[in-house]
Amino acid sequence: MSTPTQLELTQRAEHLLREDAKKIEQLIAVQLDNLTAPKCPLYEEVLDTQMFGLSREIDFAVRAGLITREQGREIISELEQKLAHLYSLVLPSPTQG
Amino acid sequence: MSTPTQLELTQRAEHLLREDAKKIEQLIAVQLDNLTAPKCPLYEEVLDTQMFGLSREIDFAVRAGLITREQGREIISELEQKLAHLYSLVLPSPTQG
Repeated sequence: MSTPTQLELTQRAEHLLREDAKKIEQLIAVQLDNLTAPKCPLYEEVLDTQMFGLSREIDFAVRAGLITREQGREIISELEQKLAHLYSLVLPSPTQG
Repeated sequence: MSTPTQLELTQRAEHLLREDAKKIEQLIAVQLDNLTAPKCPLYEEVLDTQMFGLSREIDFAVRAGLITREQGREIISELEQKLAHLYSLVLPSPTQG
């Protein structure tokens, strides 16, 4: 069994984190399609839990030297933009409190 | 700046995970020292959140090829034993519902 190189480890780490971010995006898309009330507490709790889990993975990957802090911020930021876009398709007004 | 070797990356990963497990143990020890009701919902929520975060870090480290599934299970199992010991010092009877 060959051991992975340092480059393979860092590339795999970033790939995995982007996959996990994609999974959250898909989960939220399914929820928004199926829930009649996207503002309900259960929906927000699922999102909070998933975002917390991803942020812990990213923080660990940064500390472990697999990705840079900047790469980590980028993954979160891109996910947030995609979620904001999904919201904008469902919610009538983004300024609505 | 020298890039870390593959061995350094895997060793650092395991060290970080054990540190994170230690932090949860210390957090729970402080809580048990200070809370009059260790069975209160807030206490259990903090523990659940922390254990979830650690399990996500470990799962990521396994998938990224940094530690084995077995090493991951060992870190969680050792932490659970330490928490059970902390509980046993505070709660009068382990069989008490």
